[in-house]
Amino acid sequence: MTQLDTPPYYVVIFTSQRTDVDQAGYSAAAEQMEELASRQPGFLGIESVRDVDGFGITVSYWADLAAIEAWKSQADHVGVQRVGRKRWYESYRLQVARVERAVEFPPSR
Amino acid sequence: MTQLDTPPYYVVIFTSQRTDVDQAGYSAAAEQMEELASRQPGFLGIESVRDVDGFGITVSYWADLAAIEAWKSQADHVGVQRVGRKRWYESYRLQVARVERAVEFPPSR
Repeated sequence: MTQLDTPPYYVVIFTSQRTDVDQAGYSAAAEQMEELASRQPGFLGIESVRDVDGFGITVSYWADLAAIEAWKSQADHVGVQRVGRKRWYESYRLQVARVERAVEFPPSR
Repeated sequence: MTQLDTPPYYVVIFTSQRTDVDQAGYSAAAEQMEELASRQPGFLGIESVRDVDGFGITVSYWADLAAIEAWKSQADHVGVQRVGRKRWYESYRLQVARVERAVEFPPSR
């Protein structure tokens, strides 16, 4: 991912606990949403990890708050958010933050 | 974790790729650092996930930038950072960000 060594930019931090139902449906939707997000204006990247107990952290990177707002309101995404609350997530926390400092190792230049 | 529904507060996002060496040493140090961090002034919480391929995301939560700066400079932590670059991490990105909005599900109140 480029640009992430030159703040400011914005992140959405999504921490979540999966329910234990519908793994196939969830995986398909997650993959589709990542693909869709990557085509949104201002998208800079996404990183995601989930452990065997179903706890996950996803960080998506955006150029500005307007880009995050547009992705939040994207029609297919809104539908998937609804299913997430009904079915896939026991709990989650979504945080929007402004990155003020970034360091990479090894140094990128 | 309390306080995380009332921004602003700060996060350190640490994404990293582990080398495949010294799992025991790494695990012991990680546990020790988490314990030490939790006793720092301004510490609000920490969440961490690593997948089977050794890619991990750790998010730690802090009251302000001064708390992050103090933790960065903590003597034992500085030593462990050095070992991390030499031995445990193939690569990492460390980002400091100001959380401006947070939403929890189910709603915390």
